[in-house]
Amino acid sequence: MSQRVLTGITTTGIPHLGNYVGAIRPAILASQQPETESFFFLADYHALIKCDDPDRIERSRLAIAATWLAAGLDTSRVVFYRQSDIPEIPELTWLLTCVTAKGLMNRAHAYKASVDQNELAGNEPDDGVTMGLFSYPILMAADILIFNANKVPVGRDQVQHIEMARDVAQRFNHLFGKGRQFFVLPEAAVDEAVATLPGLDGRKMSKSYDNTVPLFEGGAKGLREAIARIVTDSRLPGEPKDPDSTSLTALFDAFATPAEREAFRADLRAGLGWGEAKQRLVEQLEREIAPMRARYEELIAHPAKIEEALQEGARKARALATPLLAELRQAVGLRPMVAAPTAKAAEAVKAAAKPVFKQYREADGRFYFKLTDPQGRLLLQSEGFDGGRDAGQWVGRLKSEGAAALAGAPVHAADGVSADEIAAALASFAEE
Amino acid sequence: MSQRVLTGITTTGIPHLGNYVGAIRPAILASQQPETESFFFLADYHALIKCDDPDRIERSRLAIAATWLAAGLDTSRVVFYRQSDIPEIPELTWLLTCVTAKGLMNRAHAYKASVDQNELAGNEPDDGVTMGLFSYPILMAADILIFNANKVPVGRDQVQHIEMARDVAQRFNHLFGKGRQFFVLPEAAVDEAVATLPGLDGRKMSKSYDNTVPLFEGGAKGLREAIARIVTDSRLPGEPKDPDSTSLTALFDAFATPAEREAFRADLRAGLGWGEAKQRLVEQLEREIAPMRARYEELIAHPAKIEEALQEGARKARALATPLLAELRQAVGLRPMVAAPTAKAAEAVKAAAKPVFKQYREADGRFYFKLTDPQGRLLLQSEGFDGGRDAGQWVGRLKSEGAAALAGAPVHAADGVSADEIAAALASFAEE
Repeated sequence: MSQRVLTGITTTGIPHLGNYVGAIRPAILASQQPETESFFFLADYHALIKCDDPDRIERSRLAIAATWLAAGLDTSRVVFYRQSDIPEIPELTWLLTCVTAKGLMNRAHAYKASVDQNELAGNEPDDGVTMGLFSYPILMAADILIFNANKVPVGRDQVQHIEMARDVAQRFNHLFGKGRQFFVLPEAAVDEAVATLPGLDGRKMSKSYDNTVPLFEGGAKGLREAIARIVTDSRLPGEPKDPDSTSLTALFDAFATPAEREAFRADLRAGLGWGEAKQRLVEQLEREIAPMRARYEELIAHPAKIEEALQEGARKARALATPLLAELRQAVGLRPMVAAPTAKAAEAVKAAAKPVFKQYREADGRFYFKLTDPQGRLLLQSEGFDGGRDAGQWVGRLKSEGAAALAGAPVHAADGVSADEIAAALASFAEE
Repeated sequence: MSQRVLTGITTTGIPHLGNYVGAIRPAILASQQPETESFFFLADYHALIKCDDPDRIERSRLAIAATWLAAGLDTSRVVFYRQSDIPEIPELTWLLTCVTAKGLMNRAHAYKASVDQNELAGNEPDDGVTMGLFSYPILMAADILIFNANKVPVGRDQVQHIEMARDVAQRFNHLFGKGRQFFVLPEAAVDEAVATLPGLDGRKMSKSYDNTVPLFEGGAKGLREAIARIVTDSRLPGEPKDPDSTSLTALFDAFATPAEREAFRADLRAGLGWGEAKQRLVEQLEREIAPMRARYEELIAHPAKIEEALQEGARKARALATPLLAELRQAVGLRPMVAAPTAKAAEAVKAAAKPVFKQYREADGRFYFKLTDPQGRLLLQSEGFDGGRDAGQWVGRLKSEGAAALAGAPVHAADGVSADEIAAALASFAEE
């Protein structure tokens, strides 16, 4: 059976070579598998949580969309859209907000980490914490549930959020589904073997270490200059070198066949100079990156093409989201007031004033109940019971079984009340 | 100047006579004042916080909409809509969520009351608290700000939420407005002299006391039967009566002219029987209510008419909400990727790789800084400073003043770097 896989991409940065090898390339490859229906989205509502620099968000959205398209995302096969083009997502977020326990959010790792940091620094626990940071697991649940995704590829740190999405989905299904499961329960897909690339200095390539190799930024020159800055030891050409003493080799490996990898290592051991090795790395990278870069630059120069692709993606996404949200609105009571369903609602308004059972204890110490009509007129009066539980059980039977339970019940009709009137009043409970 | 007044109506109940006198009638009257632009909405997203009974929400929305229309709300003059028909509201809720401090929500009275109750009961503080309850002041802020309402008539207990809406609006204006005020700061309008009506038993008429007189439910018969149950003393016809010994008189007052009030009181003092007094009250109420009830029943029987009125209201409301939200999206960075603005964005993507100032301390114990180009090439090197603060101040000046600050700065250009190149690098900071 086809699996629906959903991947969100936060739009606060510009992709670098490490993002390409660790996330973009494998995700695009996975989207080409059979039996897989892939959803990729620019998580720009999420970006607003951490970034109040509008130009940075604009730049990042453009660069990320262009990068994924240039890297081979096939929009005829996958659904590629911006989160902020799907108004069903913030609306579902509110519906889910109403069924999410605050206690669940209190336990979110990202929030707890902020609290811990504040406590270490001697601040108030919620210092600098926005409601965006606190409640974004609900937005994330809406992202996933609105498309009923089966699998969500995430890092280990995000597994908890997928579990929260399952919790919230189950709660909504339980409260409003009446046996119907609106939401598939999503599963986290953690890839333990994520390829991470070392950066210029040998540490993991990361923007926060300022050691990244650009993917497309700065063109071929930018790439060449970054590679030139990769740290190596000072062995001269001709001296044997340890291939694993530098990031060069790992970068080469990520873009080479096993045979090419072996040859590169052998050449380093045999004395290949670092300068020449860097030159070979650049050539190896360019074989894969140069054609993508050309597409990237073409897209960046014609952003309307990207916009069009994203709008088309939004249409495909909303074709799924709109009918599901309509069902959810119906389920929670946000229903159009049209003749057909509302004939029923109009009846219900009239019936809103219902007969009432009241249980009470008299001065004689015994337990009683009575049934009154909506205006408070007595219809049915019970005998006294020794225990309140006995009285409650009879009320329960009269409600569920209606007039049929009257035969053996220790009750009598009030003066002037007909058996029909009592039967109708009891029937109104059974209809509920 | 025209004032925009916004009133939300929570859709969990069926209006009774107390709601009519205390809220509906005065609000409709106020909406007829000149220089007033009134917005009334069914707060059905709010209803979801407290009510997971979909049929009750459906009934309540229908009954409330029909009641306000029957009571004379003039939809050609006011904007009357359902909150859930305005997708801009949940979307704005998310934008505001990202700029709302969690600490602000921690201080909300309604949330704190729940925590207090839990603590009294020996429960966890957040026991039974949903994220809906915790974060609804943000939804309320969105309700108000999306229409830039000037005044929000509220009870005293809601004043804090209006203050929160002002806080959030100011924060958003400050972060993204660049001098432009997207949002008017709303003011709470607390009417200290709200008319409250006593119920059947003399306490305030309230659903929670089960002492209400129905407004339209149960028809004329329902009204008559409820009035018949108003508690009076046992004085017989002919005996003088204290007009204030029963709720009868206050109910009469709420629907009578001063002269009629005086006559009713005089007649009671003169011995009018309670039965006859109740009959006169019913007649007095019916003069105002009967024509409204006829309209109400007509509407309830033809819910599509109500739907049409609400859809028309939603169109009027969205004609204001949609362009404002488009501006807000532009401001936070959720911008379409079109040729015109994105030529700029494309430039910005290219410029994203910027020169960098780095501050550091050398083995000599002194503080230095340097400026490198985006590829890490050294452009400018400082002398050593005794303190890190001195170094930082020079970096600040170079960033803000650019090449003009170079003259007296204790720095020198790196080998082979032109003055033009340094000036261009410094200028890139000033552009930020």
